[in-house]
Amino acid sequence: MPFDTLADVRAVLARLPVSDAAAVAAAEARNGQLTKPPGALGRLEKLAIWMAGWQGTDKPTAAHPQIVIFAGNHGVTAKGVSAFPVEVTGQMVANFAHGGAAINQLAKAFGAKLDVHALDLDHPTADFTEAPAMSEAEVVSALQKGFDAVDPNADLFVAGEMGIGNTTAAAAIATALYGGVGWAGRGTGVDDAGLRRKEAAVAAGLERHDALLSDPLQVLRCLGGREIAAMAGAILGARMARIPVILDGFIATAAAAVLETAAPGALDHCIAGHQSAEGAHARLLEKLGKEPLLSLGLRLGEGSGAALAIGVVQGAVACHSGMLTFAEAGVAAG
Amino acid sequence: MPFDTLADVRAVLARLPVSDAAAVAAAEARNGQLTKPPGALGRLEKLAIWMAGWQGTDKPTAAHPQIVIFAGNHGVTAKGVSAFPVEVTGQMVANFAHGGAAINQLAKAFGAKLDVHALDLDHPTADFTEAPAMSEAEVVSALQKGFDAVDPNADLFVAGEMGIGNTTAAAAIATALYGGVGWAGRGTGVDDAGLRRKEAAVAAGLERHDALLSDPLQVLRCLGGREIAAMAGAILGARMARIPVILDGFIATAAAAVLETAAPGALDHCIAGHQSAEGAHARLLEKLGKEPLLSLGLRLGEGSGAALAIGVVQGAVACHSGMLTFAEAGVAAG
Repeated sequence: MPFDTLADVRAVLARLPVSDAAAVAAAEARNGQLTKPPGALGRLEKLAIWMAGWQGTDKPTAAHPQIVIFAGNHGVTAKGVSAFPVEVTGQMVANFAHGGAAINQLAKAFGAKLDVHALDLDHPTADFTEAPAMSEAEVVSALQKGFDAVDPNADLFVAGEMGIGNTTAAAAIATALYGGVGWAGRGTGVDDAGLRRKEAAVAAGLERHDALLSDPLQVLRCLGGREIAAMAGAILGARMARIPVILDGFIATAAAAVLETAAPGALDHCIAGHQSAEGAHARLLEKLGKEPLLSLGLRLGEGSGAALAIGVVQGAVACHSGMLTFAEAGVAAG
Repeated sequence: MPFDTLADVRAVLARLPVSDAAAVAAAEARNGQLTKPPGALGRLEKLAIWMAGWQGTDKPTAAHPQIVIFAGNHGVTAKGVSAFPVEVTGQMVANFAHGGAAINQLAKAFGAKLDVHALDLDHPTADFTEAPAMSEAEVVSALQKGFDAVDPNADLFVAGEMGIGNTTAAAAIATALYGGVGWAGRGTGVDDAGLRRKEAAVAAGLERHDALLSDPLQVLRCLGGREIAAMAGAILGARMARIPVILDGFIATAAAAVLETAAPGALDHCIAGHQSAEGAHARLLEKLGKEPLLSLGLRLGEGSGAALAIGVVQGAVACHSGMLTFAEAGVAAG
């Protein structure tokens, strides 16, 4: 799917595939026959049926999850919005390559394939308080890289990120999409003064790009970052391949929210993996109508919360696809 | 550890091993050096440090979990307290043996060893509304079976249960331990009339055995069941072997509550795996001061909610024990 302009992205958003109703019906029928009281597996049952619809089968799998981390650097770090120096983005990419980060351990724990794409780290996006973060060519290129990063053989997908400064970009995106104030949070741990600098940067970005911000893809271009655009592209790529997606925390969810705002229903193939401790994530999930699977106070990024939720989805799918029916097991159905 | 009488159980409860403070300190120090902002893994960090304390190492593991299901039958089913016939207990034990139940799939998904102990299914406990559910010899034997079921090589332990009628026994235990009303719930799905029969059975049991119920082990004997006593014995066995335990739902937690009431601190090696949809489970966890890891509306038993939480613990331990430190990875520590 070659994207030359944002118009090409809009064209894809206008013809999204939907869940397979016949597979959903077959999975619901199967669920009703499994050796357990009706409803006793709670949300696991709904999860498995939802997976069935996207995979187009009554016995879905989650044996080949793919996690892709996109990394990008942000010009807005010049405004003192992060507790960590910008060099940490590249240092963490090296850490991913050496297997030393949290996401490496989680990928291994749940049998996921992990890919890392560092996006032009030596050329940070422009400081969005002073200019659009990206040109159209830049944002389209990042969307394309994300779109192409999805392995068509994956049966479950997670997009994660690394980018010093990117909670500020995500807060600006959320503010532009939904209005209101208070979308900026403490990120990796800024102090009160740092939080005020983030709030000021968001306000300045919103003011500078005001004329363009009724268009979600322009929001992404003006206020986002390469890794954020790539996550949006990857979530879109997974949709076209009918691969279910687990959303990670605040930044990944902000990327996803761009798609949903541009084309309502664009996140029907996505569930919320967790509720991050980053202040406004719960509010963002509420806007999207997504109830998180986990709420364990994570606020790391890297796709870590969603990766942890892979285990829950694997449990759900294992029960649904592996259990015997009452008839097969010779158990009285109550 | 041979139990001849309940006095022998009391003796063990009086000399429980405690968490290794040096291992906790070492794990806390390690956690502070890992390549992530401080606290960014939220509850996963606390979980890993807690595991470290019980396993006595700064790099805990969760590679060899053991799940043991105990099954028992209950005389109180004569009072019409379940939506399922009593034969289902044995049928489900056969289903466990054939690998067809939810817990089989979850055990496989998280690499857990699964053992099943059917406890004298042909001889249900006495109907506790009319007589003590078990003699002292019977309850001691069940405690012993549970105690002995723990694999000393396991690094994480889950006790689960199967027993038509056992939410009524668990409700009676909770009522005896904590007082109040409303501990009975819908179990596998009884209707309003069934729920009233459960409430009446609990009230009758409490009245009949009133004189003995200030002693938690007598509560277990008079109102419990073999599988409930065995779970209590197993949780105690895991404590003596310093194996961390994930508590399952209402019935498993009621079994655990007997220990905590008999010897405060007896559940320090236990975490709550999930909050069950069975009405009073949240209230029981609150009494024990345990915050559940998951809350996904499960109400199946079989250890299923705790088994699902094994994945979360594995993720926590994988991060803690597998990540590189800032110094090892060459990442700036902020």
